[in-house]
Amino acid sequence: MDWSSHYAARMGRMKGSEIRERMKLIAAADLIQLGGGLPDVSMFPVAAIAAACARILGDADLAGTALRYAPSEGYEPLRGWIAGALTRSGAPCTADNILITNGSQQGLDFAARLLLSPGDLVAVETPSFIGALRAFDAYEPRYAALPTAVGSRPPAGARFGYIGSDFQNPSGRTLSRAERLSLIAACDDAGVPLLEDGCYVDLRFEGDPIPSVFALAVQAAGDVEAVGVLHTGSFSKTLAPSLRCGWIAGPSAVIRKLVLIKQAADLATSAFTQMIALDLAEGCLDEQVARGRALYLRRRDAMLAALRDFMPPGVRWTRPEGGLYIWVELPDGVDGAAVAETALREQSVSVISGAAFFPQDPQRNTLRLSYSLASEDAAREGVRRLAGVIALAAGATSPVQR
Amino acid sequence: MDWSSHYAARMGRMKGSEIRERMKLIAAADLIQLGGGLPDVSMFPVAAIAAACARILGDADLAGTALRYAPSEGYEPLRGWIAGALTRSGAPCTADNILITNGSQQGLDFAARLLLSPGDLVAVETPSFIGALRAFDAYEPRYAALPTAVGSRPPAGARFGYIGSDFQNPSGRTLSRAERLSLIAACDDAGVPLLEDGCYVDLRFEGDPIPSVFALAVQAAGDVEAVGVLHTGSFSKTLAPSLRCGWIAGPSAVIRKLVLIKQAADLATSAFTQMIALDLAEGCLDEQVARGRALYLRRRDAMLAALRDFMPPGVRWTRPEGGLYIWVELPDGVDGAAVAETALREQSVSVISGAAFFPQDPQRNTLRLSYSLASEDAAREGVRRLAGVIALAAGATSPVQR
Repeated sequence: MDWSSHYAARMGRMKGSEIRERMKLIAAADLIQLGGGLPDVSMFPVAAIAAACARILGDADLAGTALRYAPSEGYEPLRGWIAGALTRSGAPCTADNILITNGSQQGLDFAARLLLSPGDLVAVETPSFIGALRAFDAYEPRYAALPTAVGSRPPAGARFGYIGSDFQNPSGRTLSRAERLSLIAACDDAGVPLLEDGCYVDLRFEGDPIPSVFALAVQAAGDVEAVGVLHTGSFSKTLAPSLRCGWIAGPSAVIRKLVLIKQAADLATSAFTQMIALDLAEGCLDEQVARGRALYLRRRDAMLAALRDFMPPGVRWTRPEGGLYIWVELPDGVDGAAVAETALREQSVSVISGAAFFPQDPQRNTLRLSYSLASEDAAREGVRRLAGVIALAAGATSPVQR
Repeated sequence: MDWSSHYAARMGRMKGSEIRERMKLIAAADLIQLGGGLPDVSMFPVAAIAAACARILGDADLAGTALRYAPSEGYEPLRGWIAGALTRSGAPCTADNILITNGSQQGLDFAARLLLSPGDLVAVETPSFIGALRAFDAYEPRYAALPTAVGSRPPAGARFGYIGSDFQNPSGRTLSRAERLSLIAACDDAGVPLLEDGCYVDLRFEGDPIPSVFALAVQAAGDVEAVGVLHTGSFSKTLAPSLRCGWIAGPSAVIRKLVLIKQAADLATSAFTQMIALDLAEGCLDEQVARGRALYLRRRDAMLAALRDFMPPGVRWTRPEGGLYIWVELPDGVDGAAVAETALREQSVSVISGAAFFPQDPQRNTLRLSYSLASEDAAREGVRRLAGVIALAAGATSPVQR
């Protein structure tokens, strides 16, 4: 059978994530990894997870609950724990406001499934998280830029706006409190829902925390049930990605709709991994977050120092206060994809071309770096080699010491 | 914000599964459970899962692999194991023909996402698995009946046909070899792909196994790469549902498209639960399957005996050779939904009304029973009470002993 003639129209837009493809290469070769934003394996709380497994499976009642189907909305005690954490963050809510998802990626898919029909307009930051663009693509939207400067307005007719408020992937940028308040007011005024990606919010290692757009919107509306914002979160960056435990929060009426989507999509997230996540959330999470912040702060500083020491003139980069990413702008006319390719093939350094993070009209002279995986020494050496590639591409003959 | 004005058109069709809703009630009350088709908790290989967790997390390399992101296509050794099992079942294939999904439900969602645009026609058996109908509904198809008798043809213009070949949920019916061969030939001739749900195939407790439609189609085509059939499977019924490990098999070019869908939907299934599933597949799976067959055969026989002993005249039922379900046809004019409601409220017996298993034109005088959860004594007592409700509804004054 010629299957290609049977695919739905949406498949014409579905493409692979360069990052996910690159990850396979990374896993296979001995590279300096400045690309994928993966938590460092040394951060995984293996002993605590092993203890949680033994505790859960060692109790007949808990084991039965862990291994049978979970409710589609999620394991009630974990929903309650997440509601408590959101309440402490300034967004009072209950378990009814939470759906457990397979990582926050599934929350992005479900929000798009809830809100998008083919041809609808969705507003995203430029650049925006590539995984969100791939999730939205399945629902065949058009894209427009979502401006976030104070006083700006969402594009007319947008079905929703998507934002990463803290240490955004890929730019590393954080929205100020004033920008958040302005965005909430403008979107509320225009009747445009917001989808806030909160999966890095716990990884702030300097500066004062700013309440999430979700929390500020709940405070402005006076009640989570009246809010126009959905908020995703995840344990993937703080505990371990393969627990596949994330969540999406919002008004309970919206959550009930998302539960129908979850039922149809995969019935439920594993009760077992949800119970492990709860065990760790109540146990070692704070310590994990503190370890992660310390590790990634050291690695960020090493990368920033190397960028300062090695990059040729005309290269600019962001200085994130948390998260995993630095966004690099190359001199005009230097193609990030070509630089990434050369760095990989000739220098064994993996970085991600920035163009894929734009839904349209890509800014090609960009790269996304991550400091999550490389040791401080490796990052310094990787950035040194990368700078050489960039300098050559920019027409200089060697990296310039500044 | 009034979210209801923001939902996409597809949400008008998304509704809850009566079964999933009923499951919550079941969990809450002291009922005789003849409804949901859940594996019995006593079947879960708790000790083997605990040992697998300890083995995986006790090895630093394995633990790292288990807790980081898995490849979107799945954990390679598990894909290989499944390919081996399918090869032994008569469908020679390799890991490239397998995508790991969060239970087979996610494979149904993904197949529909691959193949359906709004308004497309999908052909399903009547009755059909309610979870499949809910998965397909998200893609806004029209439905038509898929006839499976020898010599019949798929409805013109169908984008694909969906079948449960063995001990179908909800009818308990198994397609004969001749019906399978005829269906394959007719669909191949009409250019209609097939989606075969194989999640009960291991639970055959009597009669000779029949090769799956997938295996027969691979044999007919001479090569899995040329086949027009996708096949889903799962460990949910043989190991434990909350491992959330299922798969979808097909030509590698189709699997690569489904991998793009998986990436966009939730990045990957948990590597940890995949590694546990592989450990058990290589270890206790055969023993598990044997235990399950023995348990469910005893329970089926108890339920069949009770049906024979207690049901009033005019009630008919199927005699499944495996799986978890018996389909009951009530006398004309007796409404299955009303019977189910009365049985639940007045007799504390949970059964599922059959109407929800029809995408349109429901046959209302039907019930789905499952023998998976109730002990033999409980099933007998439950069927006795149910028979009383049916007899009253049918206008008789008491259950008739036959």
